[in-house]
Amino acid sequence: MSRRSRPVPDLFAAALDGDRAAVARLLSLIERGDDDAREIGRLAHPRSGAAYTVGMTGAPGAGKSTLTSSIISHLRSLELEIAILAIDPSSPFTGGAILGDRVRMQDHATDPGVFIRSMATRGHLGGLALATPEAVRLLDAVGRHWILVETVGVGQVEVEVAGKADTTVVVVNPGWGDSVQANKAGLMEIADVFVINKADRPGVEDTRRDLMQMLDLSDLPHDSWRPPIVPTVGSTGEGVVDLWDAVLEHRRHAERTGELERRRSFRLREELREIVVQRLGRRARQLCTGARWDELTDAVAERAIDPWAAADEMLAPIDA
Amino acid sequence: MSRRSRPVPDLFAAALDGDRAAVARLLSLIERGDDDAREIGRLAHPRSGAAYTVGMTGAPGAGKSTLTSSIISHLRSLELEIAILAIDPSSPFTGGAILGDRVRMQDHATDPGVFIRSMATRGHLGGLALATPEAVRLLDAVGRHWILVETVGVGQVEVEVAGKADTTVVVVNPGWGDSVQANKAGLMEIADVFVINKADRPGVEDTRRDLMQMLDLSDLPHDSWRPPIVPTVGSTGEGVVDLWDAVLEHRRHAERTGELERRRSFRLREELREIVVQRLGRRARQLCTGARWDELTDAVAERAIDPWAAADEMLAPIDA
Repeated sequence: MSRRSRPVPDLFAAALDGDRAAVARLLSLIERGDDDAREIGRLAHPRSGAAYTVGMTGAPGAGKSTLTSSIISHLRSLELEIAILAIDPSSPFTGGAILGDRVRMQDHATDPGVFIRSMATRGHLGGLALATPEAVRLLDAVGRHWILVETVGVGQVEVEVAGKADTTVVVVNPGWGDSVQANKAGLMEIADVFVINKADRPGVEDTRRDLMQMLDLSDLPHDSWRPPIVPTVGSTGEGVVDLWDAVLEHRRHAERTGELERRRSFRLREELREIVVQRLGRRARQLCTGARWDELTDAVAERAIDPWAAADEMLAPIDA
Repeated sequence: MSRRSRPVPDLFAAALDGDRAAVARLLSLIERGDDDAREIGRLAHPRSGAAYTVGMTGAPGAGKSTLTSSIISHLRSLELEIAILAIDPSSPFTGGAILGDRVRMQDHATDPGVFIRSMATRGHLGGLALATPEAVRLLDAVGRHWILVETVGVGQVEVEVAGKADTTVVVVNPGWGDSVQANKAGLMEIADVFVINKADRPGVEDTRRDLMQMLDLSDLPHDSWRPPIVPTVGSTGEGVVDLWDAVLEHRRHAERTGELERRRSFRLREELREIVVQRLGRRARQLCTGARWDELTDAVAERAIDPWAAADEMLAPIDA
């Protein structure tokens, strides 16, 4: 039997035994998002629940990959195993820049305690919302108990994906204002820990003051978590121990206050809702084809009927 | 009767008579996206079809608003009327930077031949996909035959929105590489005209060469449109006449080749499909509430069942 057609249960069993190629193959199937992905989810779900996820996001060029590489080194020095999912929702193709970034992680490519995977999502937003938790679930089930989910960019989709972690780290640079101006509010909302990376450059104190002011204005509820601000230099590893300590402190806080459980329950509900939405979407695509569909769109184009009346007609078989 | 509760047909009639406040009010209703939006669409659809839309996008800071202001001046000198929709999909809030940009257009605020409107979309992606064509349809129906749709940023959502125009202008700056690295491929796909704005800065020729190379690589089909590259200085208006000529040239090309009709038909089909998807989504949200939903999500959280089995159960009433 060719490797291509190896059945999912076989691959899953191999992955449980520590076969990295099997894990990679399963992630490719998840990326494709068809029935195989669902079968993988069914196998992984009962075995999942032990992993802790850390989301990382920030503007392109903020130095996330270099920082991630330093975090990996730190965790490996503690003999922890780690998986990294690098997610690129903004491009239908995996761009050169992103592949270039990945190269910086090659130091760890041969370390069996480290699993690194890029996921391109080919422009399918719904697919991304589902593919990320499915990939995390698989890695969790096969025993990766620390999972870093890294997204490139600070657009809404990137921020949403990074924000769906147990602890979310937002990486900025000294003089960060311009690169993230379009979505500062979104970043403030998801950050559990702020990192000022490239802190060997001037402007660290200004940036810290800027962040502190925004945190003051964001009106956190009494006794809730206030995101610490950690300066780092990803290229030398400076500050990375402090960064990880901040992540662990947030984890303890989230466990103690019940916030972790609330987040996980919320995420699961969102995923379930997304599955329902996608399933209905597939049904909609089935409806939106064929001769009747063509007639209706032509009639809309000719202004004979309006789009909502056309939708009513298409949905009649379901709404009945 | 208060202004708030003025019925949609009254507002629409006033808008047809040139009442700008009525147009603004109708756009607010479209932004909200409830039944009023649908009623507005029903009224506007039969009267629409004459407007030509120009999409503009580019990284934050590329100078789109200043450029738009120069375009407005040019069109006004030709005695054309124009509407500008400035769309911000990336932020759940209208950020300071965006309001700041709008200020540059205040020159035109009192000109009755110019209608400017910002639309925030409060993080609702589906809403944006529908709100934009609905807003365009209304402006079209009330007699604005040149509509500029401007988006802030180069993320996937921004690019999608700007790309759904009759002619799409992508604004870059000399040395543009870093600011758009995450989505160069997406920008190349949608551009009908490239503008190198802030062309009084060094690096214009490098940027032009860079764009030409990317266009060479992008393997355009024989005899199709090759996007021209126009240098401009938005703050002085330099090059804006050339830019507009390029837009008109693309329009003529698209009309002659049938590309315009194909695009519009494609967009209409997409909108109709999106309406169907949204309608099903609403149905899904109705399903995803209540005691049974809570039981199922609890069972998923406890790993008693998997999310797909739970979705099957929730969808049983519809799939039957």
